[in-house]
Amino acid sequence: MSKQLSAIGCDIAAHMTVPDGQAEIEQAIRYLAPQCDALIVSGGLGPTEDDLTRQALAAVLGVELELSEEWLQAMLAFFQKLNRPMPEKNRIQAMIPKGAKMLFNTCGTAAGIRATLRKDEGGRMKDESSSLHPSSFSLQPYSTEIFVVPGVPKEMKAMFNNDVLPWVKERSGGAVILQRTLHTFGMGESTVAEKLGPLMDRKRNPSVGTTVSGGLVSLRVNARFPSFEQAEAQMESTTDACKKALGDLIFGQDEDTLPKVLALLLNPHAGVQKARTVTTAESCTGGLVAKLLTDIPGSSEYFKMGFITYSNKMKYERLGVSEQIINTYGAVSEPVVDAMARNAKRLAKADFGIAISGVAGPTGGSATKPVGMVCFALAYDKAKDDVATTLRTFTFPGDREMIRDRAAKMALTMLRFHLLGQPLPF
Amino acid sequence: MSKQLSAIGCDIAAHMTVPDGQAEIEQAIRYLAPQCDALIVSGGLGPTEDDLTRQALAAVLGVELELSEEWLQAMLAFFQKLNRPMPEKNRIQAMIPKGAKMLFNTCGTAAGIRATLRKDEGGRMKDESSSLHPSSFSLQPYSTEIFVVPGVPKEMKAMFNNDVLPWVKERSGGAVILQRTLHTFGMGESTVAEKLGPLMDRKRNPSVGTTVSGGLVSLRVNARFPSFEQAEAQMESTTDACKKALGDLIFGQDEDTLPKVLALLLNPHAGVQKARTVTTAESCTGGLVAKLLTDIPGSSEYFKMGFITYSNKMKYERLGVSEQIINTYGAVSEPVVDAMARNAKRLAKADFGIAISGVAGPTGGSATKPVGMVCFALAYDKAKDDVATTLRTFTFPGDREMIRDRAAKMALTMLRFHLLGQPLPF
Repeated sequence: MSKQLSAIGCDIAAHMTVPDGQAEIEQAIRYLAPQCDALIVSGGLGPTEDDLTRQALAAVLGVELELSEEWLQAMLAFFQKLNRPMPEKNRIQAMIPKGAKMLFNTCGTAAGIRATLRKDEGGRMKDESSSLHPSSFSLQPYSTEIFVVPGVPKEMKAMFNNDVLPWVKERSGGAVILQRTLHTFGMGESTVAEKLGPLMDRKRNPSVGTTVSGGLVSLRVNARFPSFEQAEAQMESTTDACKKALGDLIFGQDEDTLPKVLALLLNPHAGVQKARTVTTAESCTGGLVAKLLTDIPGSSEYFKMGFITYSNKMKYERLGVSEQIINTYGAVSEPVVDAMARNAKRLAKADFGIAISGVAGPTGGSATKPVGMVCFALAYDKAKDDVATTLRTFTFPGDREMIRDRAAKMALTMLRFHLLGQPLPF
Repeated sequence: MSKQLSAIGCDIAAHMTVPDGQAEIEQAIRYLAPQCDALIVSGGLGPTEDDLTRQALAAVLGVELELSEEWLQAMLAFFQKLNRPMPEKNRIQAMIPKGAKMLFNTCGTAAGIRATLRKDEGGRMKDESSSLHPSSFSLQPYSTEIFVVPGVPKEMKAMFNNDVLPWVKERSGGAVILQRTLHTFGMGESTVAEKLGPLMDRKRNPSVGTTVSGGLVSLRVNARFPSFEQAEAQMESTTDACKKALGDLIFGQDEDTLPKVLALLLNPHAGVQKARTVTTAESCTGGLVAKLLTDIPGSSEYFKMGFITYSNKMKYERLGVSEQIINTYGAVSEPVVDAMARNAKRLAKADFGIAISGVAGPTGGSATKPVGMVCFALAYDKAKDDVATTLRTFTFPGDREMIRDRAAKMALTMLRFHLLGQPLPF
């Protein structure tokens, strides 16, 4: 609901979950109503004893519940269609606060409720001295539209779309809010923020904020303007400004993921032209890079084969990495991933070979090769019969899971920059 | 967090989400604190301008922020380890309200905060007449422990476990609540519930409930007794009763995962005796089985090599699965996984070979091989120079991600039952 409301320019003042008790629900309605133009309450409209939302709303409104004859008839018809008598318990589902409007439930037996809560000067709170007092919201008369919708997702969604969304749209009074999220990988949140500079000014519109999840630093851009055209134009220009500040560090937006973006880069003309193919030779990530690549439906176009060579012996026997290189440089070294990437590429007849070897921990680290240190190689055709590699070594913080995750994302990022024809910025 | 708190007998008074504004966060703290013994605030501890939780808390406490020299040093050390200077912006992450306690972040740069908010009679609200007034909670002095933890899930979880949960447990007063979760994989929730029968009676103590997550059906056992000894004894006897009802379907408890349990079965005498080894030949799961096996530290003892043969050509060229078998039966067939498992086992010189080939979807299904159909083979040494295979075909519901996840878990489950010397119960 929040997502859809945001999309049409509605600010979400708060979201709150409370236990199934009448006092708790009443208190939540009393606290939240003064803060907003519309309050949506979901759940507690069932036929059992712990369904108390309609009672709580009636108490806040200061009215009794009364039977909606219209909904009772609808329920009776519903049960008749199922060839079952209506259980007596369901009768409560046709009760709504006096003066409120009954909202039709198109796929269940719980009627929804729409009511207006008005609070004039007489009802406002007096104690301005208390620091615990949410005074900023309660010192003026207000009118809040309260919508009670079922908790069952299917019923909730239908009623939200039929009865709530149209009301909010009508009331949005001009302001249109657009939202977009831009994703980056490879630099820390503070570095990204520094590069964005004044774009992150809190008072800027569109605003730009950063969030971090799974090693991705994402920019959340919100544009709020009187018209859709303005909002869209401003969103575009702020997006462009972010891209100018961060360049190809931004790999996608909204639902984009690194594997999705790579799928498009490897296979841009799906069905028309053959994809470029990639193979993986993984040690410490143990198959994770291949797993991410094959998360994408249709990845068989560009992914044919992957090698997981966890032991030195298998790096030698199955990937043909010479024992001498392993013995001289160690399994976690750029010469070893170089050979892994080249040999995997050749054996899998792929256009690109990605190789990873590192210390995922928690043990196995040393002074020169600490836990978190990971070597990467990307093998590609420089010219006919001339394979070149890009080599990198990074040390990632965190535990085994985080190190493996970041290493896999870094490998995908290396391939991404290569496909863009750009040098890796780190 | 709610789940874990509920599990140890803690009532959740409310859950609330507010925008990234200082006024909004302050107001939420002021409203919620009087309603609870502990208030957990998550998020807004980042280094950027929209991270305002520490400022909001300081304002509510009526104190200034001050530098935690201890945390500043920890951050400097963190960045030094990464060979990067600490960006100036990160300095704010060492600021905490005066008089509050700094909570160590074991996997990030945001220090957590623990503070006590006290409100005596002088601060209580006066206006009892207003119906909008949450009077039931604010008319008495109170003391609330406020914990501020990072929003990044991993950091939040670690700090919650290290600093919040122990405090709550200590406060639970009198009744001892023990909790245990027993995990199963392979049978549906209703089947598991049927097998448990009266153990799932709602009034039973210890209580047994089922939850489903990621295809695992888990039993949550809660024992609530006056003494620890009683609780422990009852927990054991209920656990035994569950095991009697479900047998080896229960693969572990609490933090156990299928890969962890397999690690113990493959390598029971780590360091003393060599482990038995396993290799993987994956098609539709694209490396996921190997990734799961190598999630475990020390997995190099039993996992040396994995093959991801996504294309038919690579099944033939790199795993030696005859083209005739593939052409006759199709890539998703028991004869193909049989050959994949045997050949992978031989090439990797492993004790066990796991092979998977299936239709992960969303396209590629047919009437006889629908989306979700997956073939499995487990190759093992029946006698000297006599390799045998266990073969199975299952059809999993859900989308691509779910099908791949369930298939990987089923493969691990097949190996687990084999290592237990038990026939697969499905």
